[in-house]
Amino acid sequence: MKAEIISVGTELLLGEIDDTNASYISRRLAAIGVDVFFRHTVGDNLDRLVQTLRSGRRRAQILLLCGGLGPTPDDLTREALAELTQRPLVAVPEAELKMHNFFQERGRTPTASNFKQCQVPRGGELLDNPVGTAPGVWLQHERNTFIAVPGPPPEMREMIDGQVLPRLRQRLRTDGAGVLWTRTLRLAGVGESQVADMLADLLAAQQDPSIALYASPAEVRIRLATKSPNELLAAQLFAPVEQEIRQGLGAAVYGVDDETMEVAVGRALVAAGATLAVAESCTGGLIASRLTDIPGASRYFLAGHVTYSNEAKQDVLGVSAEILQNHGAVSEECAAAMALGARERSGADYAASVTGIAGPTGGTPDKPVGLVYMALADAAGCTVERHLWPSSREQFKQRVSQMALDLIRRRIISH
Amino acid sequence: MKAEIISVGTELLLGEIDDTNASYISRRLAAIGVDVFFRHTVGDNLDRLVQTLRSGRRRAQILLLCGGLGPTPDDLTREALAELTQRPLVAVPEAELKMHNFFQERGRTPTASNFKQCQVPRGGELLDNPVGTAPGVWLQHERNTFIAVPGPPPEMREMIDGQVLPRLRQRLRTDGAGVLWTRTLRLAGVGESQVADMLADLLAAQQDPSIALYASPAEVRIRLATKSPNELLAAQLFAPVEQEIRQGLGAAVYGVDDETMEVAVGRALVAAGATLAVAESCTGGLIASRLTDIPGASRYFLAGHVTYSNEAKQDVLGVSAEILQNHGAVSEECAAAMALGARERSGADYAASVTGIAGPTGGTPDKPVGLVYMALADAAGCTVERHLWPSSREQFKQRVSQMALDLIRRRIISH
Repeated sequence: MKAEIISVGTELLLGEIDDTNASYISRRLAAIGVDVFFRHTVGDNLDRLVQTLRSGRRRAQILLLCGGLGPTPDDLTREALAELTQRPLVAVPEAELKMHNFFQERGRTPTASNFKQCQVPRGGELLDNPVGTAPGVWLQHERNTFIAVPGPPPEMREMIDGQVLPRLRQRLRTDGAGVLWTRTLRLAGVGESQVADMLADLLAAQQDPSIALYASPAEVRIRLATKSPNELLAAQLFAPVEQEIRQGLGAAVYGVDDETMEVAVGRALVAAGATLAVAESCTGGLIASRLTDIPGASRYFLAGHVTYSNEAKQDVLGVSAEILQNHGAVSEECAAAMALGARERSGADYAASVTGIAGPTGGTPDKPVGLVYMALADAAGCTVERHLWPSSREQFKQRVSQMALDLIRRRIISH
Repeated sequence: MKAEIISVGTELLLGEIDDTNASYISRRLAAIGVDVFFRHTVGDNLDRLVQTLRSGRRRAQILLLCGGLGPTPDDLTREALAELTQRPLVAVPEAELKMHNFFQERGRTPTASNFKQCQVPRGGELLDNPVGTAPGVWLQHERNTFIAVPGPPPEMREMIDGQVLPRLRQRLRTDGAGVLWTRTLRLAGVGESQVADMLADLLAAQQDPSIALYASPAEVRIRLATKSPNELLAAQLFAPVEQEIRQGLGAAVYGVDDETMEVAVGRALVAAGATLAVAESCTGGLIASRLTDIPGASRYFLAGHVTYSNEAKQDVLGVSAEILQNHGAVSEECAAAMALGARERSGADYAASVTGIAGPTGGTPDKPVGLVYMALADAAGCTVERHLWPSSREQFKQRVSQMALDLIRRRIISH
């Protein structure tokens, strides 16, 4: 089954926001086996929207629109569907009642513009929006299915995951195309060729599920995929393969599907009933910020110290003047002292530190841009790693934070 | 002049990366007055790439492709242009020599695949890539101009700004269409209607430059635009209008064009010769991370403390047990104590703090999700602001960090 994704909004064409919705929807469709060969971005313009739908419907059964469902005259997705299919927009009384109640609960009164959102091209359905006022649209017309979801990311995600994907899975079943189920294992601290070598036999023998490797900086992903009538059967097929991969690659597998490294670290800490502190120099707070992106991080994350100046390293973390003078702030000795100091100060079970040269300036022949020391202190003592990752400041911060979090994760689960 | 942007890469269609290149190029084209009415994303597939170019060239003079210029068989942008225009790919000797030297300097030897990158459809030109190995393509064919730039963001940005925009400006001049020049003032801490009111006379009388307002959460932008043969004349036209706006809106203007709030804070600190420390609870290190995204931040940023636990607030910042017991960690008193503690500890001229409830859990009727206190301490004492911004955890962290940075900026420039 083929789909095209159409992102709607002049603000996208002006580059005022990045279109993260399109990539989210792309991932979700790929995961159930719907092929996306084209994506388009169109402004808030009726003719151009209709034109895009018209050419897209010749190539794909599913046309999935994101955005343009708001209450203003600029929001034209419903109108474009009506125009294309030559079906008049009709009001949906249940949606009107819901809109009325939504506003009443907030002590406000909906206007005619709001009620525009309760209309759908005749024969279509509105998709309930549990987190906002703009319902989605589901419209079957001749051989095409037109789906429209709202642009605000939380509303889009809720509607895609809660309503669009289950319906598309059902459709794939009915059509006999088979539903694709996937499970992606995410690995850190190993290279692609290393993974390929360790899995050589498995990769050579693969039939069902299929096994594919994907690599990006600081991450390798292994995607298991199978066509199956339901999720349970797919899960049963994946389980032994995943087990074999985990036996071979052990601690490198940090998460599954959308799980980030900060989720993995949080989970490991909760499982161990342990607490964490961090001391950062070159990452400037990014490690702490990522850890605290996870709801409930206060259960295990005690404190972070962004000791950018030498004075702060001495005062807050107790790094000695001798270390700073003889070895410098970017040194094995300083990294160790920072981690030990952060652990002692916070009373955390684990404390990690990073100190390095993010660049673009500040490098020397001895200590070039991209040099970083990462340390981890726990009850058993302190270990330090040295790495050289020359890259842009932004990429450096991202990569160092990822690898420092992985260092923490590996240590916790090794206990 | 109309352009369409075509992003090339199967990894985009699978949603593995967000297409930030497309928004960057969109912003740049909008800024010089080139209209982008459609953007497309296509995978690494020759037929579909040619198909997209074929339909795009009927609608727009400029077709700007991004990606697919690498050395692997998957990289098909050059081939698609050759196929569409029926011009054979020919080698460019200067580019081959440069490729050879590039590899030699690194002690390596280029392969046949690398030399593929030195080919261009006959009659076209290669655009020099000062930061990578993939040259770009510039090809005039019948009424269309086809431009291809590499996908890695630093290479794309360098080529767009350094080569593509100057050539397009020249083209706009030659065509008599006129080059659009813009200057965008970025404001924080004021609402759109407030800005509109203050600028009412200016907006009513506007002719050249045109003045437009754009609003997004926590930011208002005022865009000045004019068509002018060169940048200097445009700048002379903008200057008095900008001065009038700055007189009316004073400190609300934090930056211009692409300048972020962290850039503005850094600039204010450097100008004042002052230093900064921050103490964060609910933003979890995001403020420190944003401040340290700016190269050279070590000149003014001394230390950040992510005091997530009450113990850390007491131990590191000297918040009293009495405050935590009687008022709680999310209180005016605690915010003030955190800022004062961070200032005293670091010796910084300014110290800011934030403490709040990011959610989704942890809210109470008295202290709901979205409540935040922000404090700023300097030599004159300490002030505290209270805000309620219920939103997702991610949006909350983003907004609080933006407003805390703005609080710092305003205080510094008021001195």
